[in-house]
Amino acid sequence: MAVPTRFTEQLGVEHPVVLAPMDYVADARLARAVSRAGGLGLLGGGYGDRDWLLRELGGLDLAAEGVGCGFITWSLASQPHLLDIVLERQPKAVFLSFGDPAPFVERIHAAGVPVICQVGNLEHARHALEVGADVLVAQGGEGGGHGVGTRSTLTLVPEIADLIVDRGSDALLLAAGGIADARGVAAVLALGADGAVVGTRFLVSEEAAISAEAQARALLLSGDDTVRQSVYDIVRGKDWPAVYSGRVLNNEFVAQWHGREGALTEQIGEVRALFTTAVEVRDFDTANLIVGEAVGLIRSVESVESIVRSLTRFTSGRVAEVRS
Amino acid sequence: MAVPTRFTEQLGVEHPVVLAPMDYVADARLARAVSRAGGLGLLGGGYGDRDWLLRELGGLDLAAEGVGCGFITWSLASQPHLLDIVLERQPKAVFLSFGDPAPFVERIHAAGVPVICQVGNLEHARHALEVGADVLVAQGGEGGGHGVGTRSTLTLVPEIADLIVDRGSDALLLAAGGIADARGVAAVLALGADGAVVGTRFLVSEEAAISAEAQARALLLSGDDTVRQSVYDIVRGKDWPAVYSGRVLNNEFVAQWHGREGALTEQIGEVRALFTTAVEVRDFDTANLIVGEAVGLIRSVESVESIVRSLTRFTSGRVAEVRS
Repeated sequence: MAVPTRFTEQLGVEHPVVLAPMDYVADARLARAVSRAGGLGLLGGGYGDRDWLLRELGGLDLAAEGVGCGFITWSLASQPHLLDIVLERQPKAVFLSFGDPAPFVERIHAAGVPVICQVGNLEHARHALEVGADVLVAQGGEGGGHGVGTRSTLTLVPEIADLIVDRGSDALLLAAGGIADARGVAAVLALGADGAVVGTRFLVSEEAAISAEAQARALLLSGDDTVRQSVYDIVRGKDWPAVYSGRVLNNEFVAQWHGREGALTEQIGEVRALFTTAVEVRDFDTANLIVGEAVGLIRSVESVESIVRSLTRFTSGRVAEVRS
Repeated sequence: MAVPTRFTEQLGVEHPVVLAPMDYVADARLARAVSRAGGLGLLGGGYGDRDWLLRELGGLDLAAEGVGCGFITWSLASQPHLLDIVLERQPKAVFLSFGDPAPFVERIHAAGVPVICQVGNLEHARHALEVGADVLVAQGGEGGGHGVGTRSTLTLVPEIADLIVDRGSDALLLAAGGIADARGVAAVLALGADGAVVGTRFLVSEEAAISAEAQARALLLSGDDTVRQSVYDIVRGKDWPAVYSGRVLNNEFVAQWHGREGALTEQIGEVRALFTTAVEVRDFDTANLIVGEAVGLIRSVESVESIVRSLTRFTSGRVAEVRS
């Protein structure tokens, strides 16, 4: 049932549910499906693969279908023209994560597009407010993939909600990290968020651009089987700023190298060859499987429509009343 | 306003709020105040200081005042007679954290006292159910002080709630870690908990057995200023099992030694002398200040009565309806 929040009203969507713009996984098919189901779908612009972006945009009318796009901010800084490719198609929103959004906010606003800034601590939240973010995403370390990772959603959401009030800002607030069902959505609305950003639950959807093998493995996992690490950034040659780590399946590869990053760097040629092969053959004892703690709440692959329905399966209006 | 849950009904308390049995801080005065305010007060039996325990019990009638007692389980194993001292006074409950509860459950049940077991992951939760815990506490790593620390409250609570259902158990479930106001209580009830264990918020109460200097410092902090570490266990000579770490103020001492535990051990005599002096003079740049991430939500020292009122300041009944 529809739960109206400031986010649904201002963005013009039915449900306070946003697709995390997961690199490659959130392609045109998945993003469109989330928007059609009443949430906000976002393309996973990620590190900025121009060919991928143009291909996905080829079959997707961002403006007509109400889809936005996410970028890894520090990576976008080296190829800012990708933002123009998206902005000229009038996306529903641009979602910036991991890095300084300041160089991009003005251009996005000039295109009449809302800026959503994902932050992982108070310092980043204050900066995002100062540079004019319309929506903040308080991202806890329980989420899959990259983030600051030093705070949990349960405390970061209300602390940033208080910050927004203290600053006299009318910015909206979303919560990200650890949300995979209606219990999680109800919880973050109670904490003061206007909506929830959901990743892992949509990764295990029929429409996600990910292998059946990856999804089958995810269904076997508890949140206990995940861990924050940086070894996959090293083996993939991704130049992440030191403040960010990423939550993944705690597999044999992580057990072998996490905490031994120096040794990994010394043997990078050999290890990278093994990793590349593992990715090709979908061997998730070695290849990276990016999932958050909430993977332990997911028991089946479902359609996006079914997932959005299950995420909002509480009685209309009640959640908002709890907050008052 | 009173929010009835299975926990309030079965334990016979007014509010689904439990005082975390914080070592020394949760003395007779604080535990009594929480029970009088309608929550469940628990003495912080901690590592097992017999003189302290007898002194606190001297002025406190556990049975008449509805107060229970917590212990650090691995430490209680070396002085199990402390449990008898408590049991013969008919505590409202015994709260066991950090270690195997199996050797104690039968004795506690024989005294007609409910057993509350705090757990930090699914393995510990399964074990606690198997040995007969009446109440599980799902403790996330955002909390202050010790814990497994690898999971967040937001995901651990629903995953353990599902486990309890899957096992066909009628055990109750509390949430601990990151809860300092009504938003947090409402959130964990929405996640499937029957109540909330609250530490840091009561540490910054008028009745807490802690210095005004510690509380004044706590009021300045954001959750960003806290970190999980083990260096204070080393300097205090506390023999914690490796699976546990503790969240504290991320001060100069932690910045100096966290990640350099080997060097700390080598210089332990000298460093311990500095630490001991810092504790005496309440210098929290060096002494340990045990606070959770939720410290960033606390803005004033208040009475326990006022805190319990603020923790339950949502409209009666609504939270339970969100869960259905």
